[in-house]
Amino acid sequence: MSLKVIQPQQRGTEEPIFERIGIVGLGLIGGSIALAARQIWPGSLVIGVDRKDVLETAMRMHAIDVAADELFVLSEAEIVILAAPVRQNIAVLPQIEANVTNSAIVTDTGSTKRAIVEAARALPPRFTFVGGHPLAGAARGGLANARADLFRGWPWLLTPSDERSDTAVEKLGEFVRALGAEVRILEPEAHDRLLAFLSHLPQLTASALMQAVGDAVGEQGLALAGSGLADTTRLASSPPQIWRDIAATNADQLAPALDVLIDLLRELRDDLAQGERLAEVFAAAEHWRDVLRTTTPED
Amino acid sequence: MSLKVIQPQQRGTEEPIFERIGIVGLGLIGGSIALAARQIWPGSLVIGVDRKDVLETAMRMHAIDVAADELFVLSEAEIVILAAPVRQNIAVLPQIEANVTNSAIVTDTGSTKRAIVEAARALPPRFTFVGGHPLAGAARGGLANARADLFRGWPWLLTPSDERSDTAVEKLGEFVRALGAEVRILEPEAHDRLLAFLSHLPQLTASALMQAVGDAVGEQGLALAGSGLADTTRLASSPPQIWRDIAATNADQLAPALDVLIDLLRELRDDLAQGERLAEVFAAAEHWRDVLRTTTPED
Repeated sequence: MSLKVIQPQQRGTEEPIFERIGIVGLGLIGGSIALAARQIWPGSLVIGVDRKDVLETAMRMHAIDVAADELFVLSEAEIVILAAPVRQNIAVLPQIEANVTNSAIVTDTGSTKRAIVEAARALPPRFTFVGGHPLAGAARGGLANARADLFRGWPWLLTPSDERSDTAVEKLGEFVRALGAEVRILEPEAHDRLLAFLSHLPQLTASALMQAVGDAVGEQGLALAGSGLADTTRLASSPPQIWRDIAATNADQLAPALDVLIDLLRELRDDLAQGERLAEVFAAAEHWRDVLRTTTPED
Repeated sequence: MSLKVIQPQQRGTEEPIFERIGIVGLGLIGGSIALAARQIWPGSLVIGVDRKDVLETAMRMHAIDVAADELFVLSEAEIVILAAPVRQNIAVLPQIEANVTNSAIVTDTGSTKRAIVEAARALPPRFTFVGGHPLAGAARGGLANARADLFRGWPWLLTPSDERSDTAVEKLGEFVRALGAEVRILEPEAHDRLLAFLSHLPQLTASALMQAVGDAVGEQGLALAGSGLADTTRLASSPPQIWRDIAATNADQLAPALDVLIDLLRELRDDLAQGERLAEVFAAAEHWRDVLRTTTPED
């Protein structure tokens, strides 16, 4: 299951899919793509764009070959990966369009897809954009937690928006599979509806639960917690700025998902003494958790 | 960190705290206590009481020395540990009282403490009961998941109800520490208020979330889940019968805890587009999660 590691002196033994890989935003995801790409294709050039301090760290980590805080460095890139928070990716799209060559494939790694796919559609038709969303994740974000094997075994969703991008989807799929991920194709709408439940709802729940518990019991109380609270709130260290963008660009799907959970919690609360609703919810939950166990790589 | 394992031929090298240990209910907790006791004190007799099929499994696992489905076998026990669901423990208390000798210490391992402490107070004063609650836990319950090191590094809460039990608390604390746990003393009321947030709320939330997500996305959707959903719903395999008893005997504390979470989720839902409340909740959650990380043995 470990990545094939090629030493620098063996450069070029792996046929590169892209000679020049541009990554805008070197957080957990962008940084992990950079690390993986440099391991797999030492002959390719990984170009990182971010703030100066992040770039310095990325260079120290040997995650990138070229560091830049200006987008013109992407003009020669064959693939550009937008890996900043969703609304920053959307905001930077027109500048990316102005800087890349006609043949470049532009993709992103954001957790919502309708908003960015729509923004990309508004750009000139020569621009090739394919939405992407790697589902791997770590409890803590940021470049410091990036690792080359982050995507191994996890789905990487692609949401192509028109037929013109067929060749791009194929090449991007090849790239993503080389990083160890499993490619799945979805409509942007289906993606956002699905992820509202699979990812956005659990995240908001974990954060709300952690605040509720922490505020109520304080530091002394938390010292008496068992392992269940730690598991259930592991997501609660996720970066707020990323999640504000996700919530804002998927509010119409996330609101009804939250309503479903709120209704279930209210039903449980109203039947604590009898516990009939509790028995039903626990039985359904046990069933779905068994299903999840069979479909999740690490559990 | 591993338990000292004493082979049968070395019986008696560890000074036993109790010569005869009775355990009523051989699930995850009762079974783990049995396994640990037999490892640490091979010279002591571990007497298990449960249904016949469970006892057969316990004998096969070498978790117990004596198997019985009748309580009279406990008459010679120096400690009796009630490790069935809370209301079963409460129901069996009068029969325990009728079977044990005057000097026996009776304790339990239930997740709520007011109800059983009150029931024990109603028994003749010669009866020595000290409420207990080991905070260790595993994602899945049952004897099959029992292990001798389950308690190592985790708090074990004791809730003595009067001064007469001082000597019993001391001896029980010694027993519990030998199993690897850290003893903490609490009032039954403080215990139930605290655990409503630390344990009962996370459990109900994980189960409700798992049902909400599973019902919405189905098996095909769950196949696309990342690691976050797996963490957040790990508790959702917990046995319903145990949790019905917990919810019923702590309803007055758990209802307001659920209300706090429901209110937070509702606030998040009403501000998804702006995300100001989200930023506040995530900041608070990140802080408390950092505190939890420093106080949780495995994280």
